Amino acid sequence: MNINRNLYAVILAGGSGTRFWPVSRQNRPKQFLTLVGKESLLRQTIRRAAPKVLAANVWIVANRRYQKEIKRHTSGLGIRASQILWEPKGKNTAPAILWAASRIHARDPRAVMAVLPSDHLIQNARAFLNALDKALRLARQDQLVTFGIVPTRPETGYGYLKAKESGGILRVERFIEKPDLARAKDFVARKDYFWNSGMFVWQTETILEAFRKYLPLIYAARGNMLKAWPKLPAISVDYGVLERADNVAAVAADIGWSDLGSWESLAEILPKDKSGNSLKGNVLALDCRDTLILSNTRLVAAVGVQDLIVIDTPDALLVCPKHRSQDVKKLVETLKKRNARVC
Amino acid sequence: MNINRNLYAVILAGGSGTRFWPVSRQNRPKQFLTLVGKESLLRQTIRRAAPKVLAANVWIVANRRYQKEIKRHTSGLGIRASQILWEPKGKNTAPAILWAASRIHARDPRAVMAVLPSDHLIQNARAFLNALDKALRLARQDQLVTFGIVPTRPETGYGYLKAKESGGILRVERFIEKPDLARAKDFVARKDYFWNSGMFVWQTETILEAFRKYLPLIYAARGNMLKAWPKLPAISVDYGVLERADNVAAVAADIGWSDLGSWESLAEILPKDKSGNSLKGNVLALDCRDTLILSNTRLVAAVGVQDLIVIDTPDALLVCPKHRSQDVKKLVETLKKRNARVC
Repeated sequence: MNINRNLYAVILAGGSGTRFWPVSRQNRPKQFLTLVGKESLLRQTIRRAAPKVLAANVWIVANRRYQKEIKRHTSGLGIRASQILWEPKGKNTAPAILWAASRIHARDPRAVMAVLPSDHLIQNARAFLNALDKALRLARQDQLVTFGIVPTRPETGYGYLKAKESGGILRVERFIEKPDLARAKDFVARKDYFWNSGMFVWQTETILEAFRKYLPLIYAARGNMLKAWPKLPAISVDYGVLERADNVAAVAADIGWSDLGSWESLAEILPKDKSGNSLKGNVLALDCRDTLILSNTRLVAAVGVQDLIVIDTPDALLVCPKHRSQDVKKLVETLKKRNARVC
Repeated sequence: MNINRNLYAVILAGGSGTRFWPVSRQNRPKQFLTLVGKESLLRQTIRRAAPKVLAANVWIVANRRYQKEIKRHTSGLGIRASQILWEPKGKNTAPAILWAASRIHARDPRAVMAVLPSDHLIQNARAFLNALDKALRLARQDQLVTFGIVPTRPETGYGYLKAKESGGILRVERFIEKPDLARAKDFVARKDYFWNSGMFVWQTETILEAFRKYLPLIYAARGNMLKAWPKLPAISVDYGVLERADNVAAVAADIGWSDLGSWESLAEILPKDKSGNSLKGNVLALDCRDTLILSNTRLVAAVGVQDLIVIDTPDALLVCPKHRSQDVKKLVETLKKRNARVC
């Protein structure tokens, strides 16, 4: 569990989602929120890797519109301005990863980089670090390593990967897009399917070679990313590289992971009272069950509701049943069309 | 439909209920709210009677803690301060009615008084005035006249009265407390059961005589009501007088009446969109059905909810299913116990 001087963390902090509206907004996406624990998800992500990664080896890729937020949420962590790459525009994960990989590789050709999304939750930090150790060893064998999360329920909102042990390595055979419920149930019952967490570990040398082979257009831009940026395709590293490469390995990780994709997924994780309620702030709930209520300063009073989500902020309130919390996106889209100020 | 110089309106405005919390509060009970239409229920009550009652004949009985509100809601209606009787404390309807009756009788021994609660809704003002005419004629025959509302549904939250035609008069045989659903269904199917609306018409002479007979203690206090007030029993005129008298008649009234006893009963009355929703204020509702949302200035956004009530005020929010809206009372009691400021 020691610092590894060749290990780098590349924190992807470019997300702009509004699934946690009305708490998340266009200028305050999920990675900056303190949804679980006492710090923002971004800050938790950085600190979680700290036992193994030097502060000088932490790189952040973020949209430049969030400069202020990034600076605030990374203050005191020893990350210099030169370690932050500012995307002029979101282009999905492949350009961001190539950019970080080439910058790190120029400094340290022996580098191994861990790609870590900044807006996920990992409840078991020790297990995460152990998995990171395993991934590091695999990466040294020229593997593109993914964290394969051991599925705990037939989730239809995640991508899966199928992996098989061979020669001491859990080799990824294929990636599966969000399955229907029947397939998801099948996947959970089996031992060879995992959730694709979007966390990766590889040598910069290995990933640069893969980009050269599978995404030459992006690879060619590495000399001047900012100039090339407007024309680069927006593409994920999963789709652009990993689904084509034949040296993809997995580390089976049982680390209390959640992508926190909706209020419902947050509700699953938060501590609950005897009736299954998670109540935070100035809340009075009578006869309520399995309900999530977050209040700001105002009193939120609920009687007799069940499986409901109530999120209060100073200028906007959300009410929706848990099973409809994916539709918060629709709501925000409607608000954007109306040019509402509360997006 | 002319003014009757001997007809008096006695507006009972002493209610202190909080069934419409968080809009109603201890210092802002229902009669002062504009729940339906453009004026407060109190003001609507006074104006509804105006085509038949002189402004100088309108008396108001109210709790003195609401002096400011009463003055505000009666301004411009021609009601002098001397026409308002200030109760030091709520004592239910019998003391209030005896007080008004004796004061009016002293001025006009030929007076007929209509007792009108100030916190009910009457949607058909013309039918109300017609019923008032009929009641007036019956009152002149020494009857204690009640408005018997033709029931439209098996309501278990109301009291009923059973009446039977005899000698051209619909005589009230008995009063029935809130029935269970089976009895309520039976009552609606029959022609001789009515909702007891709490609206009454009688000669001051007739009601004073009835008090003398059935509530002598209260009757004896008429010389100095304020002095006697602290010791007077809190008792309703229904229970104290009408259930014992043998000269109680009814006027069958189909006047769009509601006692507005809960958010649910208000929701029944408000205009609805195609999906059965009543949305007022800054509201965005996607895929919602049969839902009542009142917003203040903040945006209230709802997705996929049904049969729900969401009431937003600057310092408190209520969320409850329609069928639980009677339990708002419990909620307010809990808040009072906690000395919350938002009661």
